[in-house]
Amino acid sequence: MTDKDALLSYYERRTCSAQWMEFNRAFAAELSAGLPPEDIRQLFRRIGERIALALPVERCDTVEQLRNGFNARWEAIDWGFATLQEQADHLRIVHACSPLAMAFGPDTDDWASGFFEGAYQTWFAAQGTPPELRVQAEAAPTDGSPQVMLRLGRFQR
Amino acid sequence: MTDKDALLSYYERRTCSAQWMEFNRAFAAELSAGLPPEDIRQLFRRIGERIALALPVERCDTVEQLRNGFNARWEAIDWGFATLQEQADHLRIVHACSPLAMAFGPDTDDWASGFFEGAYQTWFAAQGTPPELRVQAEAAPTDGSPQVMLRLGRFQR
Amino acid sequence: MTDKDALLSYYERRTCSAQWMEFNRAFAAELSAGLPPEDIRQLFRRIGERIALALPVERCDTVEQLRNGFNARWEAIDWGFATLQEQADHLRIVHACSPLAMAFGPDTDDWASGFFEGAYQTWFAAQGTPPELRVQAEAAPTDGSPQVMLRLGRFQR
Amino acid sequence: MTDKDALLSYYERRTCSAQWMEFNRAFAAELSAGLPPEDIRQLFRRIGERIALALPVERCDTVEQLRNGFNARWEAIDWGFATLQEQADHLRIVHACSPLAMAFGPDTDDWASGFFEGAYQTWFAAQGTPPELRVQAEAAPTDGSPQVMLRLGRFQR
Repeated sequence: MTDKDALLSYYERRTCSAQWMEFNRAFAAELSAGLPPEDIRQLFRRIGERIALALPVERCDTVEQLRNGFNARWEAIDWGFATLQEQADHLRIVHACSPLAMAFGPDTDDWASGFFEGAYQTWFAAQGTPPELRVQAEAAPTDGSPQVMLRLGRFQR
Repeated sequence: MTDKDALLSYYERRTCSAQWMEFNRAFAAELSAGLPPEDIRQLFRRIGERIALALPVERCDTVEQLRNGFNARWEAIDWGFATLQEQADHLRIVHACSPLAMAFGPDTDDWASGFFEGAYQTWFAAQGTPPELRVQAEAAPTDGSPQVMLRLGRFQR
Repeated sequence: MTDKDALLSYYERRTCSAQWMEFNRAFAAELSAGLPPEDIRQLFRRIGERIALALPVERCDTVEQLRNGFNARWEAIDWGFATLQEQADHLRIVHACSPLAMAFGPDTDDWASGFFEGAYQTWFAAQGTPPELRVQAEAAPTDGSPQVMLRLGRFQR
Repeated sequence: MTDKDALLSYYERRTCSAQWMEFNRAFAAELSAGLPPEDIRQLFRRIGERIALALPVERCDTVEQLRNGFNARWEAIDWGFATLQEQADHLRIVHACSPLAMAFGPDTDDWASGFFEGAYQTWFAAQGTPPELRVQAEAAPTDGSPQVMLRLGRFQR
């Protein structure tokens, strides 16, 4: 039997539509050559904000409704899925299987973090989440799996 | 972090092109209603043979070349990938990540087995493999993962 | 400038998902070898009925709502679109850009006619259309363009 | 019967993979907000150059071989197709059915022109075309059809 890591790695390689793979890789090379990393992260953050505005989620009453609302949007464009877990003082958001890592190449974890910070912050703000609560990316998983870890909570440096 | 099984299950759900999911499910219902299981298995076997003829693999000298030849064909149509392992008295073929299970629904393992028996038998025959060697499906993995296990060897009941 | 027919023909070639093109062509060869044409037409009719049941359209008050309801379903699975035109004694339905012709090969106009008769008849019945009104395919367009012409009206031989 | 313009317009709307439509539109909004048009055109030109390098075309002896070489590359990523016509003093290149207009929105003809100038110039240079011959975009078709017109010839202002 082929092990799960081999299956996952096959699927991951195909996460990004073949139509935009080369284009996005070329675009990534241009960005890296022309802008400092923090500016690229901010650009992806703004792109994430725009996508959340373009794909609004209706008002939700529970965390589960919210997760379903987010995932209906992501599923429609084949961008993976979110898991939400309530913690003592924050909400943990894990976004898995997005095409970003495959599309822009290795070493762009920070771009993906910026993108999802922008997208989730915008969606939570539209739900009436108080502005002192911020979506912030946490360290990427060390096993290289295609996941972005974020937290919604009070701003932390 | 979301665990690997959740990632795999997300990917598996999306293995079959949305364009043909409903059609194939409806076709499966018609087949199940109209034909005995063994006839459906033979139908899928013949479809597998036709696909192997339509997507020929050039003559190969090593098992690794053969695996690469098979996988180039499967990859072009987004049908998963094969692993080949030489055993004492047979060659083990594991085909993972095909869209068949998702396309035709649960309980169609036998259809997939028939399909891949037909496809690999035809490809091996075209490579000059002696006719007494047969591709035969083995029991499906018990963990429900999307894999078909086959062996190329002397015919066994 | 490249003319419209060349653009159309490029797009048509790509109507069917690459994942199912070879499979469907092989399936078509098996069907043609094993069943008389009228039986295949009936099989496709039943597949169309099943798809219409699997993708229900909500109750509509106008022809335009109905067209939008149908097309939302077709668009979700990338199956082309319908145009509805009220005539003196029937409703004309033209279904364009479906992947059927490309999927099953030339000379399968009848299969597509059967499929769409089944699908539209089922959707109209669910809207409360009286049973004496029938969806019937008309002659295919002579210019070879990827369209199926149907009429909803009293049964005609 | 539905007319050809309606069919074309249906197909054009679907030219760009749903996975990247919203992302590209958001990216386009960021670009337009942040860079002068000529800089965006140059960015797309460089992206086109990088794609031509990433997808090299083997050495060709005839215009027809070259067209087939280009189109095999474009077809693999679902980016439309080129037509080449030898004229008295230049080679006309018409690129049809690319996803660029749908991906980045109306009013981005100039971006597409830049992209294809970069891609074709790079491919012709790799074929040994003398450097005084330049690929230059010409005016877009006035009928709004998804085509980019270019010429390979001596530089013209």
